[in-house]
Amino acid sequence: MARSTSLRHRRQSTSGPAPVRQVPWKQPANPYPPIRVLSDDQVEAIHRSSLRILRDTGMEVMHGGARDRFRQAGATVDDSTMRVRFDPALVEQLVSTVPSDFVLRSRTGRKDLHGGGNNFFFGAVGGPAFYSTLDTPRRPGTFEALLDGIKLCQHINAIHLAGAPFEPVDLPAESRYLDVLNAVMTLSDKAYFGSAMGSIRANDAIDMACIAFGETRQSIAAAPVIYSGINTNSPLRLDVPMATGLMAFAEAAQPIFVTPFTLAGAMSPVTLAGSLAQQNAEALAGIALTQIVRPGTPAVYGAFTTNVDMRSGAPAFGTPEYMLAAHASGQLARRYGFPFRSSGTTCSVLPDEQSVYETLFSLWGAVMGGANMIWHAAGWTDGGLTCSYEKMIIDAEMLQTIMGYMQPIQVNDETLAEKAIAEVGPGGHFFGTQHTIDRYETAFYSPMLSDWRNYESWVEGGSVDTRHRANAIWKQMLKEFEAPPLDPARKEELDAFVIKAKERIDAGAHPDAERDL
Amino acid sequence: MARSTSLRHRRQSTSGPAPVRQVPWKQPANPYPPIRVLSDDQVEAIHRSSLRILRDTGMEVMHGGARDRFRQAGATVDDSTMRVRFDPALVEQLVSTVPSDFVLRSRTGRKDLHGGGNNFFFGAVGGPAFYSTLDTPRRPGTFEALLDGIKLCQHINAIHLAGAPFEPVDLPAESRYLDVLNAVMTLSDKAYFGSAMGSIRANDAIDMACIAFGETRQSIAAAPVIYSGINTNSPLRLDVPMATGLMAFAEAAQPIFVTPFTLAGAMSPVTLAGSLAQQNAEALAGIALTQIVRPGTPAVYGAFTTNVDMRSGAPAFGTPEYMLAAHASGQLARRYGFPFRSSGTTCSVLPDEQSVYETLFSLWGAVMGGANMIWHAAGWTDGGLTCSYEKMIIDAEMLQTIMGYMQPIQVNDETLAEKAIAEVGPGGHFFGTQHTIDRYETAFYSPMLSDWRNYESWVEGGSVDTRHRANAIWKQMLKEFEAPPLDPARKEELDAFVIKAKERIDAGAHPDAERDL
Repeated sequence: MARSTSLRHRRQSTSGPAPVRQVPWKQPANPYPPIRVLSDDQVEAIHRSSLRILRDTGMEVMHGGARDRFRQAGATVDDSTMRVRFDPALVEQLVSTVPSDFVLRSRTGRKDLHGGGNNFFFGAVGGPAFYSTLDTPRRPGTFEALLDGIKLCQHINAIHLAGAPFEPVDLPAESRYLDVLNAVMTLSDKAYFGSAMGSIRANDAIDMACIAFGETRQSIAAAPVIYSGINTNSPLRLDVPMATGLMAFAEAAQPIFVTPFTLAGAMSPVTLAGSLAQQNAEALAGIALTQIVRPGTPAVYGAFTTNVDMRSGAPAFGTPEYMLAAHASGQLARRYGFPFRSSGTTCSVLPDEQSVYETLFSLWGAVMGGANMIWHAAGWTDGGLTCSYEKMIIDAEMLQTIMGYMQPIQVNDETLAEKAIAEVGPGGHFFGTQHTIDRYETAFYSPMLSDWRNYESWVEGGSVDTRHRANAIWKQMLKEFEAPPLDPARKEELDAFVIKAKERIDAGAHPDAERDL
Repeated sequence: MARSTSLRHRRQSTSGPAPVRQVPWKQPANPYPPIRVLSDDQVEAIHRSSLRILRDTGMEVMHGGARDRFRQAGATVDDSTMRVRFDPALVEQLVSTVPSDFVLRSRTGRKDLHGGGNNFFFGAVGGPAFYSTLDTPRRPGTFEALLDGIKLCQHINAIHLAGAPFEPVDLPAESRYLDVLNAVMTLSDKAYFGSAMGSIRANDAIDMACIAFGETRQSIAAAPVIYSGINTNSPLRLDVPMATGLMAFAEAAQPIFVTPFTLAGAMSPVTLAGSLAQQNAEALAGIALTQIVRPGTPAVYGAFTTNVDMRSGAPAFGTPEYMLAAHASGQLARRYGFPFRSSGTTCSVLPDEQSVYETLFSLWGAVMGGANMIWHAAGWTDGGLTCSYEKMIIDAEMLQTIMGYMQPIQVNDETLAEKAIAEVGPGGHFFGTQHTIDRYETAFYSPMLSDWRNYESWVEGGSVDTRHRANAIWKQMLKEFEAPPLDPARKEELDAFVIKAKERIDAGAHPDAERDL
């Protein structure tokens, strides 16, 4: 919880704007049993349905090398249709080696994350082509703008992962991942993500993580330093870049999240049960491949099931269906002992009221469904197409509140305060009692963004609404930002790696040219 | 959930603006076990602490008649200090007659509510002196403006109680309750609330309910038609109007909610455990009085524990502490078998992003804490001082979503959709399948307020943010409003009652003159 005393003292003694008050960095754990929306029988029914899907329809695996891996592991493969079918017992056997938890290290060792059990962590939005601020309506991401985004992800303590919250589309598509990784590894010491869009991007990311950590592929295999995620191309397809990226991460024993893109009514059945069965089939197939490549490699069950708007075909977020699917997905993941990944999401194109309730409903579905990793939990707007800086601050306040909600109530003679109650007596007040004085500075959650002043004071203060206060906060955070220390030799090595990798790309090793191997 | 097909058809065939799409009226039930934040031992520790508070410090009961009731029931009363102290066994015995549920009737019989078990219902904000719209900044409530507020509470299906969402302060303070009751009973057929601020207001409200229902005090005693709520004046004080109002409702066997106003750090200890113990003591004392007056009268455990901002002393809402206290209060209420009342709340002075997350956190604390009645769930802003019409619409969307979340996932051969999955196959899509066509119109939650269009369409549509869309919706709702039928004879009788009651007040029976009896 916020322990803001020292900040408040600093506020009084300096002349500039107050430092942004936020909770200290800490990985949260969820004390509540995950909410169940399915009976055990229903979980089993969905499980069995997904095994029948994998047996009868199977997955289309577009990469020959991946099909070979599946064939060698015992699956039935038809190369002419690229179809891979599985005996139900084989699926269960293949995924049985997934570890139920893992530690994802940070390069300073100060922000390691536990992925599993009741531990969870939040990541910022990733992937948008656009960014927006209240000063700058939606526009394509640039590398210069992205540096601010990376700094915010590092500076906001409620975001646990390093982040590059949008794409710098002003840089060449085939090499921008190198510049992004270099910037993230320089500006952030939170856990790193690397793209799994093909083996070139994946392996470069892993090699750069080795440099940033000053380690080797051998040492990181025992203790991961970078993670990635792939999506299946729902329904029931695994494309070439996703398969090769997944295999590269699995070979290096770095955690990989497998997330089907099951939009009920479009890429999966219009019924939640059917979408969940299909999601489960696709996730099991992808996770099986990680274990075929390297048994025991950390793999995570990702879920993104939501419905589409049947009038437009666009995905809907933060709906009742989204929450139910998130809870159900957690139950499915736990059935196999997999860590579980979910997301915070909204359709709203700006950081407004809709964006808040849709995101918060999504977060409830994720967190109370027992998710261990919650991606896109800060800054997501516009169905994932735009990163909003104000939304990142609004979301950070919500994430802080959720983490506060995870702190149990202390019940003991001191906290029951019978003496103070007797001392104050009927009609009195507790402001001045010793019991209050001893505790008031740290007793309660202290917000970063919320304005608790009364109407008159709020008007006197300029009538600033939440999104405009958020605007001032991210600007202040950028002023306060300090990059974490990085050994200059490692920084030089990262720069040199990027130059060489770009030369390799210029010479023809195009990361997107990988079609089949 | 929304079955909006017919509305969509109507939209196409009429020329005016589309009718507002909303879920049909239905009382929800919560399929999830309430979230527990206390162990059974901790619940017992708080329970025992509250009994010691009632034994050692006791309650200050400012009304002599109420003290007499307590004395006759076996409590130890000191009239010189107005102090009432209780033997622990006496408290437990007195509250043992509270029914665990009740039915609150509506005058058309179409909107009856079950208060207890896993049933719950939402009420709009009540009590503010101000109202606001985007067109009309905060201003004192008027009777004319209130009529719109009453109509909105009736028209919004996610609001289950009739509402008067602010005070018409342009009417005389001593008689405005009569005009408000007359308007509410005329314009709404949802369950009625009457003020318990003194026996005159309470008895007039009960008498007017009898008229609106065409019934007698005898018949309503067997099946309630109006409810009320009182607050204890925390710490540990029950004032005269609250005591006499409570007793009037209890005598008529109409449900009464007893809600301590325990703001941790101000009116109760700075620790949540201490605030909960004090809340529990005050609620038990108030509920005991209802049972002394009439054993078996429906009584509800109300909880409002939150913390204050220790810098300003103002209450904070939607905080982690609020949520934890709401969950814990539900556990305490269920320990005694009482129905449980909680609230949706925010500090924000306008319907902005903060107002949404604070309200939604509050609602989560309430609903998932097993609350049966959630007051102030729509339209509350400004710490309860202002009713916002836009907020009422934003909240209604959230309430609808919460009710959608209460609908279980159907798992069976039809919903598992294995045939459709096989038919579509890898890389296909589900839009055109028979499985989708048969279900798409009713498959998913359909929002009232959320805009799911993409950025380009949203800009083309005028770039309207959520609060401005909410503004258009409440205006449209007022155009659509139709008053429920009311027998003209009953309406005449209500009007006549109001005239007579005002004459009585003019003749000296001032509702606030009641100081002691």
